Amino acid sequence: MSDDSTAGSAGTDGNATYGRKAFSRSKSHFADRITADGRDGWPVEAGRYRLVVSRACPWASRALIARRLLGLEDALSLAVTDPIQDDRSWRFTLDPDGRDPVLGIRYLHEAYDAREKDYPGGVSVPAIVDVPSGQLVTNDYQQITLDFTTEWSALHRTGAPDLYPEPLRAEIDEVMDGIYRDVNNGVYRTGFAHEQSEYERACHDVFRRLEQVSQRLADRRYLVGETITEADIRLFTTLVRFDAVYHGHFKCNRYKLSEDPVLWAYARDLYQTPGFGDTVDFDHIKRHYYQVHTGINPTGIVPVGPDLQGWLTPHHREQLGGRPFGDGTPPGALR
Amino acid sequence: MSDDSTAGSAGTDGNATYGRKAFSRSKSHFADRITADGRDGWPVEAGRYRLVVSRACPWASRALIARRLLGLEDALSLAVTDPIQDDRSWRFTLDPDGRDPVLGIRYLHEAYDAREKDYPGGVSVPAIVDVPSGQLVTNDYQQITLDFTTEWSALHRTGAPDLYPEPLRAEIDEVMDGIYRDVNNGVYRTGFAHEQSEYERACHDVFRRLEQVSQRLADRRYLVGETITEADIRLFTTLVRFDAVYHGHFKCNRYKLSEDPVLWAYARDLYQTPGFGDTVDFDHIKRHYYQVHTGINPTGIVPVGPDLQGWLTPHHREQLGGRPFGDGTPPGALR
Repeated sequence: MSDDSTAGSAGTDGNATYGRKAFSRSKSHFADRITADGRDGWPVEAGRYRLVVSRACPWASRALIARRLLGLEDALSLAVTDPIQDDRSWRFTLDPDGRDPVLGIRYLHEAYDAREKDYPGGVSVPAIVDVPSGQLVTNDYQQITLDFTTEWSALHRTGAPDLYPEPLRAEIDEVMDGIYRDVNNGVYRTGFAHEQSEYERACHDVFRRLEQVSQRLADRRYLVGETITEADIRLFTTLVRFDAVYHGHFKCNRYKLSEDPVLWAYARDLYQTPGFGDTVDFDHIKRHYYQVHTGINPTGIVPVGPDLQGWLTPHHREQLGGRPFGDGTPPGALR
Repeated sequence: MSDDSTAGSAGTDGNATYGRKAFSRSKSHFADRITADGRDGWPVEAGRYRLVVSRACPWASRALIARRLLGLEDALSLAVTDPIQDDRSWRFTLDPDGRDPVLGIRYLHEAYDAREKDYPGGVSVPAIVDVPSGQLVTNDYQQITLDFTTEWSALHRTGAPDLYPEPLRAEIDEVMDGIYRDVNNGVYRTGFAHEQSEYERACHDVFRRLEQVSQRLADRRYLVGETITEADIRLFTTLVRFDAVYHGHFKCNRYKLSEDPVLWAYARDLYQTPGFGDTVDFDHIKRHYYQVHTGINPTGIVPVGPDLQGWLTPHHREQLGGRPFGDGTPPGALR
């Protein structure tokens, strides 16, 4: 989840802590689940909930992609925050009058407060809000997308892929676990390190894991099985940000993604797959990281690079076989 | 010249000014010349002067390279400063007892003070100091290397190349002028910009000029004529730092040097030429920029990347012809 403090890299706000001690990311505070049986009090229901994301945020972008791939756009509406938080965190300044037109709020924290009065923790995306009550239901970035696949299935589009196939779950979980620790969160540990040794360890972990993943992907199109799964979504959201922000801003600079032929082709393959690239906004990504983290980029200047044309060049990964959507179909055009 | 303030990017110290206004680099304060005829009171004389450099500094590195190519090592001794300045600027902490063994001083500013009592300006390298008096003679980074070629010729080694051939001087000057403005100094204007628009203009200038230079070098081995000249030395000292520091630290990140096949081969060709690569210390370079400029890198963390092995890979530029040292010979091995 993204709850990077506007105070830059100094500050603590709930889920991500990056003061003078080593960066740590704690569990989400609101972990209720929206389920088919409604056992937490939140039954799956078309039109009832609103997904709040920042397009800058890799954790929220998982939810954006899964929602597209599964065709949940009609069932679950979308609110997009400004990529730049202010001191009250994520805000709806991109909407008319600076107010989310469905929830009627100016700041995401209002939904947190509606759920728990004077909630003192960090405000993070992705967040799902119950529209009738205006209350936050969950900001559990690790669970939200899995529930889209397993609990929201009655509302999936025709031809929706199975992003978390039962027989492969153990393998998917294992792959995602290493990628989470060393890559998804590893880039943050690298970028927010305050000590040279802490930085070097984290950066080493990032590239060791990327090398391992690159080997794995050299002769298979996707991370697990023959089709796109949740594991690919989670790797993609970090890879697509790698050269644009993690390479320079977070000093993950042994090499660029575009210098690893396998990972670069893999990332382009996904980027060019409906539901992936059409959720990506490089402008939001770059402005968020470079302007919000004043603790590591005091000038707030946003680099002009890297050149992005490469994302649309042929990747030739179809030669490896694979069936992107399994027995399903790609999602339709973005509305 | 390198006189980057230890106060980070906020501060003014003489030659380079980078406060809240646009970065500007002013002329050297001490512009006496050491000449064959001694008209400024400083005649060329073997063993009389000491060249003070930081291996981190591109301006000082010009002098290191020219001294090697011309074989002036015996005639002009060398002092190397710590890559990290403290609040009294460049210091000799790499030497026993933190004192330059020839000049007997701990800080370069002592030689400035010997020349002009309580000199209030910035202390920069390269600097040439008169050993008998301990006085700074010149810190004129634009003139020092030209004088090595034209004034110190009686002390050149046998086989020294002509780095500033008379018939080509107008062309060399013109090429160097554009490279100075947009590349040598352009990367600093980019990195120390405080306003987005100022940054974008400077970064645009850097890459526009690099593209122009890349075209020029596509079918000719060196910038001017058939041999290595002063123009190549001056372009090289920026290119060799490009991926290591300017790409990330100074946000010159449209692409890496290693992503431009022509410039990357040109830079490797020079790097692998005796007198160029053997003057380069990537550790000094990286620690200097990342640890001294706390205004743009507050954590002082030095990135582990980029991988440097590429510098030694074949460049195939000999296929373009050219005679690196003209009628001369390469310098001998580094002592």
